[in-house]
Amino acid sequence: MHEKTAKPSSASPSGGLSVREARACILGKTAPLGTEDIALERALGRVLAMDVRANRDLPPRDISAMDGYAVQAADIANAPTTLQIIDDIRAGDVPRVALRHGQCARIMTGAPVPDGADTVVRVEDTRPGPDGAVDILVPVQAAADIRRRAETLRQGDIVLRAGTGIAPGTVGVLATVKQATVTVYRQPRVAILSSGNELEALREPFDPARIPDTNTYALMAQVQAQGVEPEILGIARDDPAELSGFLERGLGYDLLLVSGGTSVGVHDHVRPTLAALGVTMHFWRVEMRPGHPVAFGTSGKTLVFCLPGNPVSSMVCFEQFVLPALRALSGQRHLFRRTLPARLSQAVKSRPGRIEFVRVTLAPGASGIHEARCAGSQSSADMPGMARADGLLIVPSASKGLAAGDIARVQLLETGAYQAEAEPGDDA
Amino acid sequence: MHEKTAKPSSASPSGGLSVREARACILGKTAPLGTEDIALERALGRVLAMDVRANRDLPPRDISAMDGYAVQAADIANAPTTLQIIDDIRAGDVPRVALRHGQCARIMTGAPVPDGADTVVRVEDTRPGPDGAVDILVPVQAAADIRRRAETLRQGDIVLRAGTGIAPGTVGVLATVKQATVTVYRQPRVAILSSGNELEALREPFDPARIPDTNTYALMAQVQAQGVEPEILGIARDDPAELSGFLERGLGYDLLLVSGGTSVGVHDHVRPTLAALGVTMHFWRVEMRPGHPVAFGTSGKTLVFCLPGNPVSSMVCFEQFVLPALRALSGQRHLFRRTLPARLSQAVKSRPGRIEFVRVTLAPGASGIHEARCAGSQSSADMPGMARADGLLIVPSASKGLAAGDIARVQLLETGAYQAEAEPGDDA
Repeated sequence: MHEKTAKPSSASPSGGLSVREARACILGKTAPLGTEDIALERALGRVLAMDVRANRDLPPRDISAMDGYAVQAADIANAPTTLQIIDDIRAGDVPRVALRHGQCARIMTGAPVPDGADTVVRVEDTRPGPDGAVDILVPVQAAADIRRRAETLRQGDIVLRAGTGIAPGTVGVLATVKQATVTVYRQPRVAILSSGNELEALREPFDPARIPDTNTYALMAQVQAQGVEPEILGIARDDPAELSGFLERGLGYDLLLVSGGTSVGVHDHVRPTLAALGVTMHFWRVEMRPGHPVAFGTSGKTLVFCLPGNPVSSMVCFEQFVLPALRALSGQRHLFRRTLPARLSQAVKSRPGRIEFVRVTLAPGASGIHEARCAGSQSSADMPGMARADGLLIVPSASKGLAAGDIARVQLLETGAYQAEAEPGDDA
Repeated sequence: MHEKTAKPSSASPSGGLSVREARACILGKTAPLGTEDIALERALGRVLAMDVRANRDLPPRDISAMDGYAVQAADIANAPTTLQIIDDIRAGDVPRVALRHGQCARIMTGAPVPDGADTVVRVEDTRPGPDGAVDILVPVQAAADIRRRAETLRQGDIVLRAGTGIAPGTVGVLATVKQATVTVYRQPRVAILSSGNELEALREPFDPARIPDTNTYALMAQVQAQGVEPEILGIARDDPAELSGFLERGLGYDLLLVSGGTSVGVHDHVRPTLAALGVTMHFWRVEMRPGHPVAFGTSGKTLVFCLPGNPVSSMVCFEQFVLPALRALSGQRHLFRRTLPARLSQAVKSRPGRIEFVRVTLAPGASGIHEARCAGSQSSADMPGMARADGLLIVPSASKGLAAGDIARVQLLETGAYQAEAEPGDDA
């Protein structure tokens, strides 16, 4: 299937794949890794590799949904009436006595309904009565305010399926069925390599002739944001032997990210060196901006991405290709960033033929649709702008650009997951 | 200010605060904690407590934006023409010779432009010439394809401000300015306590008369999702002395979460015990559904939240109140979940007077606006439904309910951050 999708798009004269074709090629070669058992306390963000069944009925028996009095419906049909209180039942208690005609039991929310009772009257519909009795002020519907046994969970039923991403609510459900240990998909082991003679390592002394290694750390953080701690291999100089050593080490991981340095000379080394190490490259260009020179290959089960040396392009390529691959390896089924519609507050130019990803910040808009504003210049050298961006606004490849007021889709980045204001339009 | 906002809303007859009033009360008593220095490798998700300045000009000098030839514009004004190649400059090189009339230098992307050159001609606009020369095929604009020194960063300029949440792009910028160690706000220390005789601990043996402790782990995961590892104190039984011991320990943290167990009897203990320990309570009820019985207090700098025993209610209250407080303590300025508009695919009922949070799943909609569908029943006992929810749909307190097709705001939860499909409407 990927052979087909890896063929150049008819829509792209220069022979690169479309973003969709490139993704299909990558995901066609990506499958979840093995599984492992971990404690529930470590499970957040992982993916279930097992179906999970309820270990009990919940509630374990009929319980009261309110604080009030457990009664026999027949006794209160003609309320107001007075009933004798024979018990006081709290959550966790086991009722001692069964209710008989004319009797009731004081009962708390979550407390088990005693035998003989079929209805709960809320405390606000009652009034303390003479010695040990309570006045029921109004009749209530039979069976009112009782939560039935197994209403929430029935023992043996599947409550969570394999492939479920573990979010806070999922952890709650796992605790509810007493799943202290869970079987999840193993996380991918990721290696990051930068290359280029001009690069200065983070902890190397300042050298005016060189430029800092941005990509290693931007990629590290993008991987960390997926809950995976990557291995940083370092910086390979433009030397075939050194590069080969680094790449060979990187091929021992599930996923290898090579960012190209800024010189084409480096790519000249990377391509033959990867080939010599037995890596099959599946594409070398994608019709997108920024990020055109992005390449993908495989060696056995190892996925290899060659990302542009330009930091913004590298981050955008990670978002479109590496992120879904990383999530697929982790067993996730939701592989793509949430997108939302936004109204452009300014025009953006675009040359047709390549899909364009515009870094934007989002602000609450009048109609409830967010206003999207360009984050800094759209120069692919503008890292500060990329750092500020809440999302990537998509200009389709056929488009000649968008006008102010146009509505477009925005891929929501980490930065965009939270906003400064609560809902203005209403009370939350 | 909080005194004012803590006063019951005129809009709420039963005397609870509105969600907005409750948030204002909480945030009026919440300030960032101290600061600490950490390695860049650990900085993702933290908040800068320092302004960060550029440590260099970037690019450090004029560099080429393309692979091609560095020339003197005057020499190619009447191209086609032929120039002598006197140098071959790659990224990281320091040019040895200055260009003179009739000369050019082969230059790679990111490589420094030699003295004497003022323009770059792209390789595709050239052709190899006779012995050591190149044919420039077309005239290009003077200064074309040169990135100017300090175009991206100017030494000494502030590139990131204190209060910036550290996302992957931010990590990239910090690496760019060689900030291997960063000063960030300290993360809050959080304690979680459950209470109720009916609760069975995660690793306790199964007891048919009791119910599992869901809240401790759902809350744990909600805190973990904010990058904070909470301390789990355990389960306090309905015994004042035991409860007092647990609460006293919890007050040693920055933030204490007490979930109430399901019996009012417990609250009866919690309230006086907190008072006896010197905690000032600021509110005890909020006009919301689920989650009405949520309380907030302070003791010195410690924030105390009493959350409903019902797991879904507890999680929703965390989202509305604890999450913004936790983020404010961490120094974040974006305190609230991203919201997006969604079209309801079914009607939802609501009783006016309380804002309602409806658990929904999101699916791509025709118009680009997501379709929102209720996740399971809206019973506040339906944890599996809460676990599936992509977001919380807001039904304003004045509303009598929403109809199918209505558009409402949805707070996006962790589950909702990713989606199963890439953009259908276009190529990404």
